[in-house]
Amino acid sequence: MTDLQLIGERAVAAKYAVQLASEDEKNSVLVHAARMLSERSAEILAANGKDIRRGEENGMHPGMIDRLRLTEERIEGMAQGLTQIASLPGCIGQVMDRFERPNGLMIEKRRVPLGVIGIIYESRPNVTADAFGLCFKAGSAVILKGGSDALESNIAIVSVLKEALRLSGMTPDAIQLIKSTDRAVTAQFMRMNEYVDVLIPRGGAGLIRNVVENSTVPVIETGTGNCHIYVDKDADLDMAVKIIVNAKTQRIGVCNACESLVIHRDVREAFLPLLAEALEPARVEMRGDEGVREILKDCAPASQEDFGREYLDYILSLKTVDSLEEAVAHINKYNTKHSDCIVTQNKETGERFLSQVDAACVYVNASTRFTDGFEFGFGAEIGISTQKLHARGPMGLKELTSYKYVIHGQGQIRE
Amino acid sequence: MTDLQLIGERAVAAKYAVQLASEDEKNSVLVHAARMLSERSAEILAANGKDIRRGEENGMHPGMIDRLRLTEERIEGMAQGLTQIASLPGCIGQVMDRFERPNGLMIEKRRVPLGVIGIIYESRPNVTADAFGLCFKAGSAVILKGGSDALESNIAIVSVLKEALRLSGMTPDAIQLIKSTDRAVTAQFMRMNEYVDVLIPRGGAGLIRNVVENSTVPVIETGTGNCHIYVDKDADLDMAVKIIVNAKTQRIGVCNACESLVIHRDVREAFLPLLAEALEPARVEMRGDEGVREILKDCAPASQEDFGREYLDYILSLKTVDSLEEAVAHINKYNTKHSDCIVTQNKETGERFLSQVDAACVYVNASTRFTDGFEFGFGAEIGISTQKLHARGPMGLKELTSYKYVIHGQGQIRE
Repeated sequence: MTDLQLIGERAVAAKYAVQLASEDEKNSVLVHAARMLSERSAEILAANGKDIRRGEENGMHPGMIDRLRLTEERIEGMAQGLTQIASLPGCIGQVMDRFERPNGLMIEKRRVPLGVIGIIYESRPNVTADAFGLCFKAGSAVILKGGSDALESNIAIVSVLKEALRLSGMTPDAIQLIKSTDRAVTAQFMRMNEYVDVLIPRGGAGLIRNVVENSTVPVIETGTGNCHIYVDKDADLDMAVKIIVNAKTQRIGVCNACESLVIHRDVREAFLPLLAEALEPARVEMRGDEGVREILKDCAPASQEDFGREYLDYILSLKTVDSLEEAVAHINKYNTKHSDCIVTQNKETGERFLSQVDAACVYVNASTRFTDGFEFGFGAEIGISTQKLHARGPMGLKELTSYKYVIHGQGQIRE
Repeated sequence: MTDLQLIGERAVAAKYAVQLASEDEKNSVLVHAARMLSERSAEILAANGKDIRRGEENGMHPGMIDRLRLTEERIEGMAQGLTQIASLPGCIGQVMDRFERPNGLMIEKRRVPLGVIGIIYESRPNVTADAFGLCFKAGSAVILKGGSDALESNIAIVSVLKEALRLSGMTPDAIQLIKSTDRAVTAQFMRMNEYVDVLIPRGGAGLIRNVVENSTVPVIETGTGNCHIYVDKDADLDMAVKIIVNAKTQRIGVCNACESLVIHRDVREAFLPLLAEALEPARVEMRGDEGVREILKDCAPASQEDFGREYLDYILSLKTVDSLEEAVAHINKYNTKHSDCIVTQNKETGERFLSQVDAACVYVNASTRFTDGFEFGFGAEIGISTQKLHARGPMGLKELTSYKYVIHGQGQIRE
């Protein structure tokens, strides 16, 4: 039996234990774990220091170093995250539906844990505590495969979380970390259908593509967002400017940031100068089609490729259209099914946009930045699903569960 | 652009058209299609005749020939299936949840079609009409890849369905058939993430494994059922016998048939002779462990492999246990997460079994044969999901849908 199979066997054994734990028991583990993260922060920071030093020696990009770096404050943030997850109402065991059949069978649809959740992520050590907290609260065991650059940090954090489980009388196998940095091991992990119920990749487009392409375990695809805002001919132009500035510049490297504008030809003359002025302070580079460049003389030309890009940067593509239909067709062609918005005062136009644009979240008159588990009031978030199976949009605790049918009979047989 | 890409492009265009169709429009297509299947049965039977002759020439197994063969009656059955699907209440557009956030955003969770559904199936031509009916009613376009042995039959059926779409003013691309019998084309179909939202394999274990292992498109795994019945020490033994005879012998080749018994040691002496007598007329071969063979002297020995097998035959494996815990552990080890049952008069034991056994459907005192979309009252069924993502157990119309979040704002931006 390989190390990985052993991890799988242990996770399956652990899932039955976690499944039986009460909400109080789970919450107590989480609160314990939060306190212990704070108490043992020196140890975690020491391990993180090793990762940082190795990263610097290997010439890691400063932005990456920053994501990798832990501080007392960031560890405190992780601890608070766990406490906050503990405070959420539990959902396991909920009766989602119940119906009686003419033959007297009573059928109940009951919310149950997914079982074993695998998370593959990059070198952000805070995901380690976060993912454990959510999966554990949702009644599942978790197997983590973090970026190799964060290995020492992850080992330290997982060791604290395991200790918290043990002290609460819960199996420490509820969280396991794959320590091998061998790519072949990760590839094998993605094919452990016998042990793992779902894989969730968290990270950049490359990581997600790798998991989607190589996993035989069911995957929840998260992430990339080429989000559009369409400024309709009946838009309140001041509102449109405010929404776009917010969606583009409030935080730049996130999947719900706006990457592309679509503008009705009738308003381009009135609107584009207002927009250019408002985006000036943040030095947003605009790349437009002919219709835009006729108005904004300094605007760079947009290529077809621009319309499909998730810049995650101070860049915005702009496209002119003659109708709602053209706007919808453009968005459905180039979006990543994440979040798209129309700004309009026309109710009917708004409703048509909402029903015809194919995305997890469709907005009328609000910033796409609201696509977020916390902003939706879920109290937690494991990611934003951009696929249509299982969960779409922000995924909180409920989206990390499954269901089973529980059927009570009195000896019924099928005729 | 390859033929397959062209099929993908057309399906994506069609999905937007089908999505906009009203329930009345969709139902009218289905009723039309049902009538045309009956009217053009001669043409379909002629095509099917070619498939049958080729099958016979190639020495196809008689059981396979039987599944491939269409008759006036079977075509009538397909037509009735479509009419029945038309009569089901529609579910697209349903508001599944609605909540207002403190900032005034009104968030609505609305049921939407999956988009483009791919079905890969074996040589049962009736699946062609069936799968189209369900997917279309659920608002999606469908791409079918049927078994090459049924190609002529499928071409004839799809041509009728396309004609029905056309006559109703709907795009005929709502159904498309992949006619190539090249395995490389099927392999490519399973990687068309750009066009296909979900793949559903329908067929035997080999087909399903092939799709799960090679598809990058999200898959709903259906099918295999190694279903258990546990006869508890507090079972009503007569009820247990009736349930087992029904679950084992009422229909033999189906995924919800019982394949394995687990028996509490305390009741084996009283129960096993009753069971053996009841299974005698159907000539069910029993394969038991030591505990069983001490009582049933003629019983064949069961290997470890037997406990894991879906026989789809008149064979039953039997295992003795000393406790509910042992029964649950055995079932969780060997089941396929499909349907498992406990027969007991003890309420507490029953509830423990229901909550601890990991399966799509868990029963107390009823035949596992009820795991079926029609028996559940869904009015339709595309298959039984044995995975935990998206849908579990019988999948009807609702399980063939997704959702989107529709958000109404008045200019909200994120602080």
